Amino acid sequence: MTEPIDPTTLTVGVLGGTGAQGKGLALRWAKAGIPVIIGSRAAERAEASAAEYRELTGTDHVRGADNATCAAEADVVLAAVPWESHAETLKGLVEPLRGKILIDCVNPIGFDKKGPYPLPVEEGSVAQQAEQLLPESRVTAAFHNVSAVLLADLDQDEVDCDVLVLGDDREATDVVRALADAIPGVRGVFGGRLRNAYQVECLTANLIAINRRYKVHAGIKITDLG
Amino acid sequence: MTEPIDPTTLTVGVLGGTGAQGKGLALRWAKAGIPVIIGSRAAERAEASAAEYRELTGTDHVRGADNATCAAEADVVLAAVPWESHAETLKGLVEPLRGKILIDCVNPIGFDKKGPYPLPVEEGSVAQQAEQLLPESRVTAAFHNVSAVLLADLDQDEVDCDVLVLGDDREATDVVRALADAIPGVRGVFGGRLRNAYQVECLTANLIAINRRYKVHAGIKITDLG
Repeated sequence: MTEPIDPTTLTVGVLGGTGAQGKGLALRWAKAGIPVIIGSRAAERAEASAAEYRELTGTDHVRGADNATCAAEADVVLAAVPWESHAETLKGLVEPLRGKILIDCVNPIGFDKKGPYPLPVEEGSVAQQAEQLLPESRVTAAFHNVSAVLLADLDQDEVDCDVLVLGDDREATDVVRALADAIPGVRGVFGGRLRNAYQVECLTANLIAINRRYKVHAGIKITDLG
Repeated sequence: MTEPIDPTTLTVGVLGGTGAQGKGLALRWAKAGIPVIIGSRAAERAEASAAEYRELTGTDHVRGADNATCAAEADVVLAAVPWESHAETLKGLVEPLRGKILIDCVNPIGFDKKGPYPLPVEEGSVAQQAEQLLPESRVTAAFHNVSAVLLADLDQDEVDCDVLVLGDDREATDVVRALADAIPGVRGVFGGRLRNAYQVECLTANLIAINRRYKVHAGIKITDLG
């Protein structure tokens, strides 16, 4: 028997918390009663976003910090930085992230006139790059396929989708699934080992293509799970 | 205004129609009134499977042939061969597939003690390999993520999932979506250009991981599409 995980006992840090995906998740977690630290390269920018998120959620447990402080003071850390600055950001955070669960939600996707397309990742996936850069952290991958627009629209009580949670550390993926389940409408589903992260990271390109064709904010659900 | 597509006016060929995915789709299409030609390397083996499928579906419009005859006589052709024989099979079918819609559903996935994992594909994706080998065919990619087990279980009236249909030829993807819609419970959804096929092909590894963890036959649905 394992104790159920109460995500409100965890402080979640959001590296790149001023961007769209980081904002959406920070808002939903704050609203669910989870303390959040917004990280950014510049502490002032992080604090400005944190003030905005406190206002939007009507809560007081969102604060801002530079990325290093964010990583050091949080229990679980989400990497929501652009793919272009992923490696550089994590390289500077080896110490503060030691022993901690890192959730990587970064999509290696490029855009041209024909729309979105997957970018190659030498390490196999963005999450595996994180694993190589942070060998003493507990790296997971999740939250790639949930619409930032729907997350940030707090007028919508629920965000109806599943979040695939990948990782080789069962306990870490259970914590991340609890953080997914904390968002109304969202269900965290174990989605495989980290070596299966690339296709989940890149599936967002297909969701963007669907959004353009059908004028929606697509996500995914896993069928037959009840 | 375009005419709605009536899939029962098309004869569908299934290369590798004796395998699990080919069988499941052939059964569902036959049951939906669509004439099906089962292709295999050996015509006798194809005819033996066709006889079984006629029996299972209670229909008479399933027949078997060697792959070349299957490709020549069908209007639309599904490639459901193992990844290992994908290139070799298609190389021999350039002529019979000229001008035709090819639907590629092949998953480039390996297995080891730790489970399923994606295999690299030099051309970017299996579907793009098909496109390179068949420059005068209309290559699409679809039906990667639908459970062969559920397809083949005809006691289940419906297979509740979406099928992502990828391709750069709008009319071809519309035909393939109609072939998806012909299966009760299934919805064909445009999923992007062919260059976005790899992640859809490999997502089946995640679904297999989910099947193992949760003891299900997982598929996917796209949310927010109504």
